[in-house]
Amino acid sequence: MGMLYSHCVAADRNVECSFRLSLIERWNQSDSLLCVGLDPEPSRIPAHLGTGPQAIGAFCRAIVDATADQVCAFKPQIADFGAHRAEAELERLIAHIHDRHPGVPVILDAKRGDIGATAEQYASEAFERYDADALTVSPYLGWDSIEPYLRHRGKGVFLLCRTSNPGGADLQGLPCPDEPLYCRVARLAAGPWNRGGELGLVVGATFPAEIAAVRRIAPALPLLIPGIGVQGGDIDQTVAAGLDDTGAGIVINSSRAILYAGDDRGFEYAARNAAIRTREAIDRARVRRPVLN
Amino acid sequence: MGMLYSHCVAADRNVECSFRLSLIERWNQSDSLLCVGLDPEPSRIPAHLGTGPQAIGAFCRAIVDATADQVCAFKPQIADFGAHRAEAELERLIAHIHDRHPGVPVILDAKRGDIGATAEQYASEAFERYDADALTVSPYLGWDSIEPYLRHRGKGVFLLCRTSNPGGADLQGLPCPDEPLYCRVARLAAGPWNRGGELGLVVGATFPAEIAAVRRIAPALPLLIPGIGVQGGDIDQTVAAGLDDTGAGIVINSSRAILYAGDDRGFEYAARNAAIRTREAIDRARVRRPVLN
Repeated sequence: MGMLYSHCVAADRNVECSFRLSLIERWNQSDSLLCVGLDPEPSRIPAHLGTGPQAIGAFCRAIVDATADQVCAFKPQIADFGAHRAEAELERLIAHIHDRHPGVPVILDAKRGDIGATAEQYASEAFERYDADALTVSPYLGWDSIEPYLRHRGKGVFLLCRTSNPGGADLQGLPCPDEPLYCRVARLAAGPWNRGGELGLVVGATFPAEIAAVRRIAPALPLLIPGIGVQGGDIDQTVAAGLDDTGAGIVINSSRAILYAGDDRGFEYAARNAAIRTREAIDRARVRRPVLN
Repeated sequence: MGMLYSHCVAADRNVECSFRLSLIERWNQSDSLLCVGLDPEPSRIPAHLGTGPQAIGAFCRAIVDATADQVCAFKPQIADFGAHRAEAELERLIAHIHDRHPGVPVILDAKRGDIGATAEQYASEAFERYDADALTVSPYLGWDSIEPYLRHRGKGVFLLCRTSNPGGADLQGLPCPDEPLYCRVARLAAGPWNRGGELGLVVGATFPAEIAAVRRIAPALPLLIPGIGVQGGDIDQTVAAGLDDTGAGIVINSSRAILYAGDDRGFEYAARNAAIRTREAIDRARVRRPVLN
């Protein structure tokens, strides 16, 4: 599989560190397209872990250690830490992933979007304070709100494109004017906005036809795909629509279906089993991928 | 001026607390349309305040105490706290405003935007943890990403509409299909999305013609207008374009031009003088407001 990505490697020969290259390396090493989303909900954390920020941290680290060999990335959701005064635990969690599971990229899900001077602060928060490898960012404020993140060389940015929620269509589906807004975002991300080559796109598993549309517009961009599991996205259709020419190119996120597979002692084993089953379902879909177009 | 807002009061008779009503009351009491943005940059904080999160907190509280009688609202920028591990100082700052300057609404600028389950966490962070009265939110993910904030009865939400940065036009200015995207956002916010009556819009002072377009679409919505001062927005044109039928309806934000008017001991007096000058410029523009349309 590595050979197929040689164009990426060549293009980035002079980049010291690159999220995109580390993601490709991890896809190859793990042979997994599964990402475990770390969205801790205090009310669902097993009681024996206690309460408060420490319980959130202990829960997430246990999930990480139980699933790391099954994943191509982890995706912590910053809102779930911010709502519970658990920023220090988020720092520890990401440091833990880098320390114990080197080579597994961390995508911080924060969906930031603000003008330049403020974007610099958000970039500093994500890439310096939290040491994330990539960040999710909203495109609504345009190029100069995205560029400050790309100045952090080698860090990745996943732009929201077509999100997994029903209301995503309210704006993203509007014809602007001759194609839906989300296609316009994909076209910008695949073209003029992708300076440095570290952009990717977020497209929801709940709309496989729209994943396919995005993949046609952006054949080489990594796609972060939430929405399988609890949200109901279909794995077979997602994989068929999203795979790139190399047979990879997608990061399929599952959060709650894995995190809360168990609810008591042994929750980490239940989570591991759920991760393995999800990964196997993805692997089966990769094998029987139909020829599209 | 209160009489002119009687339709709002009547519409919200049964709401116990209401951001919109408290903003109207504050416009009336202070007779000011100025909002001071609290965007602390550690490198610009006077040296005698020290360094670290405590210096950020002390700086912001001093600015607040020096300018509170001149403002209709304060707008802390969460990115500037998050980048410097100063969340506890942001909590203290907002508590300080509520305690020492009751009646002055706090608009937390965080530009959140995520699907429902995560939006609930962001709403909890903003309205419970930080006790903000209103929050800025991105519309890109659509109605079901906004509704969770509105479930917090009486809290305000300012939706990004036409932002003050040049790149704002990249998506917001696209014809979708028969009007620019930002006009569509304004139309949704003025109509079907405004359940509970607590929505407002963010429109940048740097594009007064677009403020006027938004005001025509949303005659009764409060507009949060950043972009005067350092960003170069014109106060006269902003006021002429943004005022509603009651002669108010706008929250004009200035951050850096006020915060960093001085850079040493006495910075709070320099900030106060800058706030007074800005408020007076706004007042002059209100008086000589031309008849539009």
